[in-house]
Amino acid sequence: MPLNKHPQCKLWRFEEPFVFETPYLGKPETIPVLEVGYETWGNPRHPAVLVCHALSMNTHATDLEFPGDETKSWWFSMVGPGRPIDTNRYHVICINMLGGCGGTSGPASINPDTGEPYGLHFPIVTLADMVKSQKLLLDALGVKRLHAVIGGSMGGFQALVWAIQYPDFVDRVIAVGSSAYSNQFMIMTNRVQIDAIQRDPVWNSGHYHGGRQPEAGLAIARMIGFTTFISPLMMEKKFTKYHQSLREPYIDGQFHQQYFHEAENYLHRVADPFTGAFDANSMIYLLQTWNHFDLAVKYGSLAKAVEPVRARMMVIAAKGDNLFPPYLSEEIAKAMQVNGKPVWYELIDDDYGHDYFLIPEIVQEKIAPPLVEFLERD
Amino acid sequence: MPLNKHPQCKLWRFEEPFVFETPYLGKPETIPVLEVGYETWGNPRHPAVLVCHALSMNTHATDLEFPGDETKSWWFSMVGPGRPIDTNRYHVICINMLGGCGGTSGPASINPDTGEPYGLHFPIVTLADMVKSQKLLLDALGVKRLHAVIGGSMGGFQALVWAIQYPDFVDRVIAVGSSAYSNQFMIMTNRVQIDAIQRDPVWNSGHYHGGRQPEAGLAIARMIGFTTFISPLMMEKKFTKYHQSLREPYIDGQFHQQYFHEAENYLHRVADPFTGAFDANSMIYLLQTWNHFDLAVKYGSLAKAVEPVRARMMVIAAKGDNLFPPYLSEEIAKAMQVNGKPVWYELIDDDYGHDYFLIPEIVQEKIAPPLVEFLERD
Repeated sequence: MPLNKHPQCKLWRFEEPFVFETPYLGKPETIPVLEVGYETWGNPRHPAVLVCHALSMNTHATDLEFPGDETKSWWFSMVGPGRPIDTNRYHVICINMLGGCGGTSGPASINPDTGEPYGLHFPIVTLADMVKSQKLLLDALGVKRLHAVIGGSMGGFQALVWAIQYPDFVDRVIAVGSSAYSNQFMIMTNRVQIDAIQRDPVWNSGHYHGGRQPEAGLAIARMIGFTTFISPLMMEKKFTKYHQSLREPYIDGQFHQQYFHEAENYLHRVADPFTGAFDANSMIYLLQTWNHFDLAVKYGSLAKAVEPVRARMMVIAAKGDNLFPPYLSEEIAKAMQVNGKPVWYELIDDDYGHDYFLIPEIVQEKIAPPLVEFLERD
Repeated sequence: MPLNKHPQCKLWRFEEPFVFETPYLGKPETIPVLEVGYETWGNPRHPAVLVCHALSMNTHATDLEFPGDETKSWWFSMVGPGRPIDTNRYHVICINMLGGCGGTSGPASINPDTGEPYGLHFPIVTLADMVKSQKLLLDALGVKRLHAVIGGSMGGFQALVWAIQYPDFVDRVIAVGSSAYSNQFMIMTNRVQIDAIQRDPVWNSGHYHGGRQPEAGLAIARMIGFTTFISPLMMEKKFTKYHQSLREPYIDGQFHQQYFHEAENYLHRVADPFTGAFDANSMIYLLQTWNHFDLAVKYGSLAKAVEPVRARMMVIAAKGDNLFPPYLSEEIAKAMQVNGKPVWYELIDDDYGHDYFLIPEIVQEKIAPPLVEFLERD
């Protein structure tokens, strides 16, 4: 059971071997059946917009049927009727990342050859694999081209790869708070997250299926993530100090004093539920995919990487984004300019930090105006 | 056995109950005997300079007897004959932090009442407690006043508290890459480190003594630390990309592909040895001490906190320090200025990141010139 699959997620099966980009001991790796989880909103006859999700999200970008459920959809401020990506005007599709655990095949999927979850035997997943799996679904859905593909963070990786890999299929590409490669800070902080899971004895080389997840490692991994999702400046604004709650766990017949700041309680509150909501092996795979994403290395340079792009491009960055600092977005824009290709680089004056593109006020005030103009311009 | 104690560390015992600042269930907490680990260099008749160490260091700031051993002393570029803190001119003392595991009493010390390590029954340690334990030693050594007290990072916390707590004892105070309180980012990243240890089942509520340490948790904690000790910009300069080594752990009769970037191997190389070199409970205690350090909260404001200071103060910050960004040092300088007290704020143009004050080239070129002028000025 894919832990991160939303009840509204639909499944499509590709009943042929899916070949991955990375060979194993010199031979191509395949899975015999590919399953793809997705959701769609709006009229299929309208221009199609593909929304690519970030590391921990799923297909549930918005929720038209249960507007009260909006907090469980990750981009309700962006996608919906009358919203910047207007479901009254566009046919919107969101697809779970290959290697994830929200409907699409990943390490938690059952290997039909063994009847057991793949675990670490799932092939290594690259961004090219993810986008290829998404293209197969769009073909099956009868989507002939994309008016736009948009994504934030790791969703931005997918959007860029779409424009490079299927240049004739994509009219507009928008990468928000993203980059064309992992920088060394991402590599390091992602590696600690991977290790936190792998060094949890419950992880058991990926064989925790049937038992409980490596909860300690997953929670630590998620907490590390949360120290990078908002900026230090925003943390100062967001949290107050001192002993918001006083917890005294009972140890050896005595109460031991532990004082928790509000920020520490926040970390527990956001990270602990994650251990029941995301597959640990999937987390490892996706962090590895992220860490090995580098269009400059793959194509020789960023300028060469974007050479095939025929889509118009918009790159959005925010000043306070510590995880994907603006210089990374600028480099994408420069690579386009070197090729004489159209690119709109929008630097947002905002200090929230990396998760800014998920914050309704920031979406409405700072992202939507230029984005809507870009989407509607012929 | 204190894991972090250097062979050259000397021990002094205070054979009276040591009273801690933080009461427990309304009653003062004490330990019956205080042990203090320290080293000294230079002539005891020369003006005394106290060097305060940071989180993971010990008493071994420099090594005059074995100059080949310099890499094992953490501030050899700063302390020694002819160095900025010149052991030919000053009597230099370095004392292990209370709560640590480098000679001074801490959670790994044996509780004389039980014959077992204190573990979590060691009292909560504050900066005031640390400095008080250091004053007891200096009194016993016959040190009448300090020409200067200097420290970096958490050592800077101690230097500031010295100047506040014993104003008539300190002539000069120098805080390098430090602050007068923990900001929310420190609180969060330190909390994840604490949790990484505490959620390791081997930690066993602090009762791992006699067995092995919670190595997984300690290594993860240390890796998290290392993602904050150098700046993202420096990481880009320091590390190259791609598959520096290819490791293929043997899993289920197959090799599983894992590619490691140089930066990922670096994290393992620096963090894994730490698990044998630092007591896990001590790490938890010191991170808690750090997280609850706040002179503004304790005294009502930073301006009020530094009111008693009679020492001249120097505050050194570096632009690329992500963990202790310059604004935190500026706030100390401003608090002194509000009181009409002398302060020298030195902002260093350097991108290395938080550990800059340990890097010989940076010490020589950027820290030593103003520091020596400050130390020698009457």
